[in-house]
Amino acid sequence: MTSQCLFCGIAAGEIPSDSVYSDEHVYAFRDINPAAPTHILVIPRKHLSRVSEASSDDEALLGKILLAANNIARQEGLAEDGFRLVINTGDLGGQTVHHLHLHILGGRQMQWPPG
Amino acid sequence: MTSQCLFCGIAAGEIPSDSVYSDEHVYAFRDINPAAPTHILVIPRKHLSRVSEASSDDEALLGKILLAANNIARQEGLAEDGFRLVINTGDLGGQTVHHLHLHILGGRQMQWPPG
Repeated sequence: MTSQCLFCGIAAGEIPSDSVYSDEHVYAFRDINPAAPTHILVIPRKHLSRVSEASSDDEALLGKILLAANNIARQEGLAEDGFRLVINTGDLGGQTVHHLHLHILGGRQMQWPPG
Repeated sequence: MTSQCLFCGIAAGEIPSDSVYSDEHVYAFRDINPAAPTHILVIPRKHLSRVSEASSDDEALLGKILLAANNIARQEGLAEDGFRLVINTGDLGGQTVHHLHLHILGGRQMQWPPG
């Protein structure tokens, strides 16, 4: 955890969020600027500034993030009709908060290209 | 492997593709309809029709897909400037091939919302 990181603060419960999932490794909450009717962010409790900072030691953690996204999609009623998962990395990827986060977007037809 | 699956055929080398990465678990190749200057698909060799079909037994495999994406992004010179990772699931997600695949998009500014 880094004390200046917004998402570390959210995962620790120090900064309020609309939580939808929580376990030992992963925390998830609703995006405050939703880009779809359902828009949730899934983050690891461990501070990784971007997905490309993950090492082979993080293999299981990365898997847990995607499995949590599946569970949340089911819980939110998105699993059958479908949803989109997005991870932005760096400036060209459009990353704005420097703590790895996976977007779950659902509840509307997602378009192509993806931004 | 299912004999009717396009991406199983690509991973097995039975259908040609512009390969960029291959290991025991994961295969990656360039998208034939690129939505960005660099547009690569990363797939597991194991046939999973969609990410939401993955079970807890697939945790490591899901992690390997993301770690492979990191390696490919580095190899393609995307790591520093950034890139976007996308997984489409089901109709609303925009999934068109029913074998789990992760899109790596880079080489241009990705926009928001992501489709």
